[in-house]
Amino acid sequence: MSTASDMPANWWNTAAAKNPALHFMDVLLRGVGQVMFQNNPLTGLLFLVGIFWGAYSANMPAVAWGGLLGLLMGTLTAYAINAPKEDINIGLHGYNGVLVGVALPTFFSPTPTLWAYIVAGGIFSTILMLAIARVFKTWKVAAMTAPFVITTWFLMFAAYNFANIKISGLPHASISVQPTDIYAVTMPEFWKAAFAGVSQVFLINNVVTGVFFLVGLACNFVWAAIFAFLASMLAVGTALFLGAGTTAIVAGLFQFSAVLTAIGLGTTFYRPSWRVAIYAIVGTIFTVVAQGALNVVLNVYGVPTLTFPFVVAAWIFLLPNLDLVPETHRN
Amino acid sequence: MSTASDMPANWWNTAAAKNPALHFMDVLLRGVGQVMFQNNPLTGLLFLVGIFWGAYSANMPAVAWGGLLGLLMGTLTAYAINAPKEDINIGLHGYNGVLVGVALPTFFSPTPTLWAYIVAGGIFSTILMLAIARVFKTWKVAAMTAPFVITTWFLMFAAYNFANIKISGLPHASISVQPTDIYAVTMPEFWKAAFAGVSQVFLINNVVTGVFFLVGLACNFVWAAIFAFLASMLAVGTALFLGAGTTAIVAGLFQFSAVLTAIGLGTTFYRPSWRVAIYAIVGTIFTVVAQGALNVVLNVYGVPTLTFPFVVAAWIFLLPNLDLVPETHRN
Amino acid sequence: MSTASDMPANWWNTAAAKNPALHFMDVLLRGVGQVMFQNNPLTGLLFLVGIFWGAYSANMPAVAWGGLLGLLMGTLTAYAINAPKEDINIGLHGYNGVLVGVALPTFFSPTPTLWAYIVAGGIFSTILMLAIARVFKTWKVAAMTAPFVITTWFLMFAAYNFANIKISGLPHASISVQPTDIYAVTMPEFWKAAFAGVSQVFLINNVVTGVFFLVGLACNFVWAAIFAFLASMLAVGTALFLGAGTTAIVAGLFQFSAVLTAIGLGTTFYRPSWRVAIYAIVGTIFTVVAQGALNVVLNVYGVPTLTFPFVVAAWIFLLPNLDLVPETHRN
Repeated sequence: MSTASDMPANWWNTAAAKNPALHFMDVLLRGVGQVMFQNNPLTGLLFLVGIFWGAYSANMPAVAWGGLLGLLMGTLTAYAINAPKEDINIGLHGYNGVLVGVALPTFFSPTPTLWAYIVAGGIFSTILMLAIARVFKTWKVAAMTAPFVITTWFLMFAAYNFANIKISGLPHASISVQPTDIYAVTMPEFWKAAFAGVSQVFLINNVVTGVFFLVGLACNFVWAAIFAFLASMLAVGTALFLGAGTTAIVAGLFQFSAVLTAIGLGTTFYRPSWRVAIYAIVGTIFTVVAQGALNVVLNVYGVPTLTFPFVVAAWIFLLPNLDLVPETHRN
Repeated sequence: MSTASDMPANWWNTAAAKNPALHFMDVLLRGVGQVMFQNNPLTGLLFLVGIFWGAYSANMPAVAWGGLLGLLMGTLTAYAINAPKEDINIGLHGYNGVLVGVALPTFFSPTPTLWAYIVAGGIFSTILMLAIARVFKTWKVAAMTAPFVITTWFLMFAAYNFANIKISGLPHASISVQPTDIYAVTMPEFWKAAFAGVSQVFLINNVVTGVFFLVGLACNFVWAAIFAFLASMLAVGTALFLGAGTTAIVAGLFQFSAVLTAIGLGTTFYRPSWRVAIYAIVGTIFTVVAQGALNVVLNVYGVPTLTFPFVVAAWIFLLPNLDLVPETHRN
Repeated sequence: MSTASDMPANWWNTAAAKNPALHFMDVLLRGVGQVMFQNNPLTGLLFLVGIFWGAYSANMPAVAWGGLLGLLMGTLTAYAINAPKEDINIGLHGYNGVLVGVALPTFFSPTPTLWAYIVAGGIFSTILMLAIARVFKTWKVAAMTAPFVITTWFLMFAAYNFANIKISGLPHASISVQPTDIYAVTMPEFWKAAFAGVSQVFLINNVVTGVFFLVGLACNFVWAAIFAFLASMLAVGTALFLGAGTTAIVAGLFQFSAVLTAIGLGTTFYRPSWRVAIYAIVGTIFTVVAQGALNVVLNVYGVPTLTFPFVVAAWIFLLPNLDLVPETHRN
């Protein structure tokens, strides 16, 4: 479904088919691309560039290297437990690992125990992927990023019970989460929010990273980039209308799950069309509501929602299996 | 299965089959009736009368009009996404919407944003209905009122994170919920509790409304009214025995889910018989325990259980698919 | 699969087949053995001896008698609702009841209401067993001890809302659970922790009880005893590495779920082998992490995890249905 020139893609595919090392790199890169449903190594490469840019800009290199380690562990685990080769080859056992590896150093200090935690998280994420995918296959729906979210939640909740895991960036646990920072956004803040909404899919708050991600999406499928960016803007508008905290909106925190919902519903599991676009809009708005709801549920524990609002929205909106000319891209 | 005279029913069915407007009204009324499993427009009409009576008595007209709006949105959404006509026609895409529309104004101030919230809730509730029904169809069990509960929970939890949704009637969030108001009920209080237990199915605390609901049930199936009222009394007794707060019992809050469990287990998914009655009694007692448990879980967030104790009980007691002469009335 | 002499087993089986009273006793004893996956009445008898030893040592006889009452109620309920005889005969409707009956007097004062609670819990646990087993049969995975855990949770959460259920031993509800009691364990403490980790499967903190349980396991299958004890030691090591509270480790609280995971993954649902042993090790480590995570989640409510860390681990590690020469022993 690539809309860019297929020349370099063909060259790479031929080279990767011949050389095991290149093939393995191809699998890893596709794993990064699959975080936003794109089975494309160039997309994955651009996502990685965006991650490294964002991580080094924030002076948190462990975020980028952790992502690579998680990606590696998730993929190697899939080989070790004989997961189906056709799933491994399109990156389905890498996308959860890379997210686990990016998420943990975002919230924990980079101690040696953290790296053991990332290794364990990468392994668990692939076992969870197989478990969740098997359950949801019953209704022909994919696991989405649930294996990443649930793995990371287990490790985060547990960290509050284990003294050797040093929490650095988790929010303070409290019952009240009513926002106190509501103000009108300026135009530059609006555009900042729209791009950060895309970059936060990988937990990064950075406009340039958001641009890299959109370019990566467009490399594989222009509609994916368009739906992603429009969804980020729609999520900004919905969050402002409902009265979410403005700081959180400008940081992209009400948009990243909505971006994934829109790419998934609008371009991956359904083909883009007017009916599908309307359905994706309803799903995007629901995702913003779900973000607010899950913020409240998890704030009691001082644990972030990660991409669970997207997971919930995708499951709810795909389970009805509506006949909007469905087309399933992922197992 | 109607036990009342079938004359007016036949006249109405013939008229509704000819006239699209009457047919649509028939679908809406059956949707209201399906809240208590009754596929009967007259039952739905009597329920609506009870709702309007209770809402206006409590000086909360938005509860009744919100119910109508939710009913309308849920049903229209079902048409828009091509839900199966045979489900729409018996009201299966109206009962969650009407409950969402009744619940939101019970707990939120009637601002313009609230009406947008009801519209969104009505739409979400039908999509959730299709999602949950598809999952539970795997085990031949119905969605019950789970789409209503989950939709309303998302909107309520989110409201604590959104400044523009004004909470008016939600309980204060706190960890302790040990009752401090335990006293012997008088005979008038006992009867008040029994009728309010029925009216609270639609979140209304009103004896007259309870009578309207029981008459509505009896119009379609006398056993449904009998099981409903006996279950309400059994729930009062169970709650008193266990030591629940007396004020909550007199307001009907430990009974409404039990009423639904008893109608469901005793008369809808099984045919009434002695074996079934015993099973319904065990299920009713379990529902009261589940009500207490879920009160504790949700009190931390200041969010009500709605009818989830019933949903949990119905799923647990129907999933074993026991051979008590089963008879499935709902998809 | 018995490795001990089969002579007494054959004599008992013949006697139990002829005498209904002995057959019923056989069913009850197998129910106790099934808590650790052993379909063997002698194993069940040794478990019972361990339970009585531990309960009377702790001056809590109600724990042992409650266990018997729960076992009886769970099994009788299975007969009453016509559960498949082949399941009843191998103890599958007793193991949840005995656990409910052991758990409730551990945390509640032995008032008359408590005994009514145990009776109700035994009944509920069998209905829940049938419900959960039916759902998970879809993916050929067993219910594990989920019916026990969920039944007991409902009764415990509810107790905070009901004045007539007297809580005696539940932890205080609080948000923070960071351990403050971290110190190096001595060698005697290490061995105490390893044996208590086994005895805590039945909520008992007693070395002699742990020995009885290991002997009971070995009577039926020597590998089960070996995996159980090695898993308890591995869990002690993992919990120490992560920085769990030392007092809790010495009391066996980070090990009992891991013991069940290792017996289940390593010897019951898979045949022991090197590949399986590695998988069981990963599962055991995951169970310790899940124990920490669920401690944090439930501590807000002052409710213990019971064996849910095991249930979660078993489901996650069995759902992928990996081809490690699988062999399903339980429905």
